Amino acid sequence: MLMIDLIRKKRDGGVLSADEIAWFVQEYVDGHLPDYQVSALLMAIWFRGMTDEETAQLTACMAASGEQVDLSRYGDLSVDKHSTGGVGDKTTLIIAPIVSALGLKMAKMSGRGLGHTGGTVDKLSAIDGFSVDLTPADFLRQVDEVGVAVIGQSGNLTPADKGLYALRDVTATVDSIPLIASSIMSKKLAAGAHTIVLDVKTGSGAFMQDPADAKKLADAMVAIGTAAGRKVAAILTDMDVPLGRAVGNALEVQEAIEVLRGGGPKDLRDVCVTLASKMVELGLNLSADEAKNRVEQVLDDGTAFTQFVRWVTAQGGKEEQLLHPEALPTATHSEPLLAPVSGCIKRMNAAQVGYAAMLLGGGRAKKDDVIDLTAGVRLCCKTGEQTTKGEPLAILYTSDPTRLAAAKEALLAAYEW
Amino acid sequence: MLMIDLIRKKRDGGVLSADEIAWFVQEYVDGHLPDYQVSALLMAIWFRGMTDEETAQLTACMAASGEQVDLSRYGDLSVDKHSTGGVGDKTTLIIAPIVSALGLKMAKMSGRGLGHTGGTVDKLSAIDGFSVDLTPADFLRQVDEVGVAVIGQSGNLTPADKGLYALRDVTATVDSIPLIASSIMSKKLAAGAHTIVLDVKTGSGAFMQDPADAKKLADAMVAIGTAAGRKVAAILTDMDVPLGRAVGNALEVQEAIEVLRGGGPKDLRDVCVTLASKMVELGLNLSADEAKNRVEQVLDDGTAFTQFVRWVTAQGGKEEQLLHPEALPTATHSEPLLAPVSGCIKRMNAAQVGYAAMLLGGGRAKKDDVIDLTAGVRLCCKTGEQTTKGEPLAILYTSDPTRLAAAKEALLAAYEW
Repeated sequence: MLMIDLIRKKRDGGVLSADEIAWFVQEYVDGHLPDYQVSALLMAIWFRGMTDEETAQLTACMAASGEQVDLSRYGDLSVDKHSTGGVGDKTTLIIAPIVSALGLKMAKMSGRGLGHTGGTVDKLSAIDGFSVDLTPADFLRQVDEVGVAVIGQSGNLTPADKGLYALRDVTATVDSIPLIASSIMSKKLAAGAHTIVLDVKTGSGAFMQDPADAKKLADAMVAIGTAAGRKVAAILTDMDVPLGRAVGNALEVQEAIEVLRGGGPKDLRDVCVTLASKMVELGLNLSADEAKNRVEQVLDDGTAFTQFVRWVTAQGGKEEQLLHPEALPTATHSEPLLAPVSGCIKRMNAAQVGYAAMLLGGGRAKKDDVIDLTAGVRLCCKTGEQTTKGEPLAILYTSDPTRLAAAKEALLAAYEW
Repeated sequence: MLMIDLIRKKRDGGVLSADEIAWFVQEYVDGHLPDYQVSALLMAIWFRGMTDEETAQLTACMAASGEQVDLSRYGDLSVDKHSTGGVGDKTTLIIAPIVSALGLKMAKMSGRGLGHTGGTVDKLSAIDGFSVDLTPADFLRQVDEVGVAVIGQSGNLTPADKGLYALRDVTATVDSIPLIASSIMSKKLAAGAHTIVLDVKTGSGAFMQDPADAKKLADAMVAIGTAAGRKVAAILTDMDVPLGRAVGNALEVQEAIEVLRGGGPKDLRDVCVTLASKMVELGLNLSADEAKNRVEQVLDDGTAFTQFVRWVTAQGGKEEQLLHPEALPTATHSEPLLAPVSGCIKRMNAAQVGYAAMLLGGGRAKKDDVIDLTAGVRLCCKTGEQTTKGEPLAILYTSDPTRLAAAKEALLAAYEW
């Protein structure tokens, strides 16, 4: 087989065979294909797309390209959740205790975030003592005993995807639905859960801003997962305004605790209930209504919060900071952003809010940047709400006061009256 | 400037600015751009094309990326001719003496051929003693004194094109009209001639088999040359059957001499007259009719042949072999291919004839292959002619008789009755 023949076939709108895709992934992982041929193929795929069969095969080959986690002992009870990313998305912190309280098993590997704020692993690291570096044996033992464990990505999972993603990132071939779908799903398949719920975000703060594109991505991922024999559902959720009111790692842990205690912002609770219900429905084979009832019950009766404390303390997190979230690490500096006008907020650019949080130190621009876990934004007013000139629109938090001016300017630009 | 921004812009159908193209070519030649980004850009160009302005700028930057020959002392008298390649194309051997006999200056650098048969430099090398390795000073002195010199490509001309072409060759991005046009024209611009005539071939033996594509390529090249301030014309010529009856280096020199002596196959003479007339028309500022009259005159009165002898002997070629072409090196083995049926030849595949000549040893499959300069095919019958079963269709020549069987089979497959 010759790589140039695969490139030409795809370039001319042809369909790559299962054998051709398997050959390509294996040769690539073995270091036999030069990057310049791979990037030419990726660009041809960007233009021509891939069929469902091609996408499923690419995903399966990438999933099989490295280590794979075996969660088959839990069957459908093993659940995973993936979000395509957004601003203020702390749903994993809330959903993981809900579903594990209801008997599901959540053995989650989560990446460090790149962009506006940290990933789930960064948020959890805001809790003093919390460790994301369990050994594989300790990780699985905790899943057995507590029902949930979240660690940083370790081991050699999906090396093919790692390589291809790095190449896509520098060759303008990231935003291709089959490539995005296969990248996400290869990691989900390798991570072992049998039941997978995908949270596909749309709107100004989402990677897929257009709902039609988000729908296509969701459909592509469900098709891949189903073809691989997993139970998969995708839910489109809104990311046109930040989720909840807290954006920034420690601030988001505080807000997650509010929801786990039965309170918190309604939009955040609603999304968590929707996603957790779908996981419970699929994992426990319940009706949608029954699943939702159980989820709301564990949120409202304190069971979910108790399970959160059990989980986080099992990984070394300080119980004190969970029971008294004001004891979580806080920023040395905070300043309000005052509303420049009175009126109703017509629109917010969620990505811009995330950018302001990053400017405050709460996110990474580069892979090796160190995050200020206390930095971020707490929104006082969101879309549809009234502002009064001179009253706070938001509070900005940071450990580096020189960052405040630029962040304020960026944050103000997120609002439209 | 960031390469990924250029890739994304082109990918999305945008137009690269002159600055962006200049930056890209310079950074590439300086070794600052990874091939994987360049190949992604090339594939995006394959899909999106380039405007005339983009193509002209890319060409100019590639032409300026290395050494350039200065022929400005000759003004419009300095002429060059480029053929997009075909089977049995020995036109340069005939045209160069014609136009230099009429006062034009042809300082030509010509590549070694890759494919069916050799390039012009290979064909000339079939003449004992002929040297294609003149020093730059001797090359220009000969142009001054004799009016024509042909040497192999030397020096560091268009390194940007060399690199990009090598990359296109392995990434399925060769067949893009703006990329082909800029590659050819960058070499023509760097080679210095002010008057350039392009011979764009169409048909079964041509790179551009579709006349519409050939027309687009011709238009693109003329636009580039004109934008660069050169006098440029393109002529579409037929390559559906091999040009003339000889395919193979020494065989083609013999046939060229026939035409230079006022005889030879009509199709070959016609193409040479057409191309040479256009060069004379542009270079000497004559009417088309007057140019054609002069070309026919020097062919028919022996002036062109005398000039051929003067040129070739100036570069060391044996006069004896020019005056008595049967004294040119000949193959140790020859065999006729007999017609399997009687009838009229409906169609020939010219590329297939070239392939047979290559199988006999007359062309290179790989860059470093050694050519058998005596090998090739002499066609007795071409499209539209009658064959008689058992009579020769063609004569095959080679120094290696083990090659005959496969070559005969390949050659027979070129015919349709």
